[in-house]
Amino acid sequence: MIHDPNRVYVFDTTLRDGEQVPGCQLTTSEKIEIARELEALGVDIIEAGFPISSPGDFQSVVEISKSVTHPTVCALTRANRGDIDVAVESLRYAKHPRIHTGIGSSDQHIKHKFNSTREEILARAVDAVKYAKKSVEDIEFYAEDAGRADVAFLAQMIEAVIAAGATVVNIPDTNGYCLPEQYGGKIKYLKDNVQNIDKAIISVHCHNDLGLATANSVAGLQYGARQIEGTINGIGERAGNTSIEEVVMILKTHPTLGLHTHINARNFYEISRMVSTQMRMPVQANKAIVGSNAFAHSSGIHQDGFLKNRENYEIIKPEDVGFPNASIVLTARSGRHALKFHLERLGHSLDKKELEDVYKNFLTLADVKLDIDDNDLLSLVAYRLVRQ
Amino acid sequence: MIHDPNRVYVFDTTLRDGEQVPGCQLTTSEKIEIARELEALGVDIIEAGFPISSPGDFQSVVEISKSVTHPTVCALTRANRGDIDVAVESLRYAKHPRIHTGIGSSDQHIKHKFNSTREEILARAVDAVKYAKKSVEDIEFYAEDAGRADVAFLAQMIEAVIAAGATVVNIPDTNGYCLPEQYGGKIKYLKDNVQNIDKAIISVHCHNDLGLATANSVAGLQYGARQIEGTINGIGERAGNTSIEEVVMILKTHPTLGLHTHINARNFYEISRMVSTQMRMPVQANKAIVGSNAFAHSSGIHQDGFLKNRENYEIIKPEDVGFPNASIVLTARSGRHALKFHLERLGHSLDKKELEDVYKNFLTLADVKLDIDDNDLLSLVAYRLVRQ
Repeated sequence: MIHDPNRVYVFDTTLRDGEQVPGCQLTTSEKIEIARELEALGVDIIEAGFPISSPGDFQSVVEISKSVTHPTVCALTRANRGDIDVAVESLRYAKHPRIHTGIGSSDQHIKHKFNSTREEILARAVDAVKYAKKSVEDIEFYAEDAGRADVAFLAQMIEAVIAAGATVVNIPDTNGYCLPEQYGGKIKYLKDNVQNIDKAIISVHCHNDLGLATANSVAGLQYGARQIEGTINGIGERAGNTSIEEVVMILKTHPTLGLHTHINARNFYEISRMVSTQMRMPVQANKAIVGSNAFAHSSGIHQDGFLKNRENYEIIKPEDVGFPNASIVLTARSGRHALKFHLERLGHSLDKKELEDVYKNFLTLADVKLDIDDNDLLSLVAYRLVRQ
Repeated sequence: MIHDPNRVYVFDTTLRDGEQVPGCQLTTSEKIEIARELEALGVDIIEAGFPISSPGDFQSVVEISKSVTHPTVCALTRANRGDIDVAVESLRYAKHPRIHTGIGSSDQHIKHKFNSTREEILARAVDAVKYAKKSVEDIEFYAEDAGRADVAFLAQMIEAVIAAGATVVNIPDTNGYCLPEQYGGKIKYLKDNVQNIDKAIISVHCHNDLGLATANSVAGLQYGARQIEGTINGIGERAGNTSIEEVVMILKTHPTLGLHTHINARNFYEISRMVSTQMRMPVQANKAIVGSNAFAHSSGIHQDGFLKNRENYEIIKPEDVGFPNASIVLTARSGRHALKFHLERLGHSLDKKELEDVYKNFLTLADVKLDIDDNDLLSLVAYRLVRQ
């Protein structure tokens, strides 16, 4: 099944785990637009929704299935036949459909969420996979709260669902609890102890509650996982999911890891802005890879070193992740777009009317000053605020 | 010097490495206000500025020195006597003054920033420490770009500066380049190979260019570092510094690490808001520990599990980091259990059939309205009654 042992598959859940965040809800047509951008980015799997949860979600999975060609389209279910029937129906137009089903694997969830036993949960997991497999070939199983699960029971569950037909096994750190060596250790244990593990791809699905989602995902890949689940900008419930852009750029920046994806990293900047705008989730300026300041050198020491040799302070070229050329020089011939870019780089997001005001004063200044530097720009913004 | 071998000292550089970001500049009185909050938070060291860089920065170090009692106040310098003289002067009112001096340690910086040789750089490092030591007892040395430095040369440099009087040795991953095992491995190498390493505290100073600052800092602590440098909200140049709140809460959530700080974690929420507002650096909703959504459960599966037992989906209690209270937010992804919870909160106890009716209308409404508030819920209940 896996032809290239060093290839990491990218599973995007911006439209499912991301979209369920308060305030982030999208219309179906907005979801289609993002799905098409995800296809252009080169993601391998798009999780399009949780069809049983609402009629709108069902319809979105149907429409996304029609709208993309290359990526697998995935629909989420709980481990029950009702959920699976609806998900199968929602995927009827998908060229490459996948059902994502699963159940809690930690004793905490088994006892306090399902009020059940390990044996019963195991039976429900196997039944769900077998049932889904009758309709769809590609079945991913999630072992919810695997981060806190007993690893021997987890291994037993994973072995059983692979035997039942799961093609991908997802090991979520649902609560963002693990340290990297704990999470990587869990993946290693599964690699070493699940007899049929080579018949499925191990997937890492991490949450960022302690700020460790990216590190945990990479640790999982180092120990044998070959699918990474995440979202654009790391959006998602609570502190969010793994940022796809961070993991992809770590693999690129560290070739000694020997892993690669099929992602077109130059699309990151654009899709980051689209997701941020449409989902009303601002990206903080200091966000890794896609934040407006991510490549902005500001201190005297750093600017000096940067100007002597950019590799003194730069491990990724901004253009490699699609940042508009940072060396644009502003003159009286510059347009509003260039001005806007530099103002945003400095942390000032202006609306159309505000930009127009600043632009007028910018032109007046640019007529008498040959190059406009950051201090001039900050003065222009301050001048506008004071004058109001 | 270190009485408690498991205590981790917290070095805050919000007012230095954080404040140098474009748009973040503070007045001296704003800096004093934040410094006092940092003291209340319980940080051990406040890096108050880079005194030679501007008269304003000098004055801020003077005033912060007067304003706080318990924390050490630290001033940054390059490895030259001019910088050190000014820094010593700026610290004259500090109850516990520290000079932070240093120089590049990677060949990239030695050749392409200083146009120098390892021998010359080593001599400058030692001279700076010896010179500063004449005026101030507590001297921290930073080996800039240590993340990319040859580890044998780094060890030689660290041994020499400790012999010259450094009390703290800071190993910065200046460009946010390292993977956790690489960074941790560097700290381990120093522990194993620098003869006088027990005469100083090793400090970790990480940047977040690849999203790994927190993981790298923790890896450093696991291998023997006992000071962590960072900022509130992880602000700082480019993708920012290590988020202090993340590292502190990792140590609290993982007692098996056997490490602790003297931080009052319940102050995190308040100081996060203060820094964000005063420095004009919005914190994204999905920021770990301090983001507005960090403890918000929204999906149906999660809300249901959370209401059954909060530990199903919560590893930190929001009140432990000062959040006013945790919120369950109703959206189109919410289930019946969450709806029932909120209706009961509002005084409406519905039976199964009644709940089913309201839930159906709730879903229709939630597909077109981003978040459902209490008024919406009351309308839904009223609608059902009127229609009967």
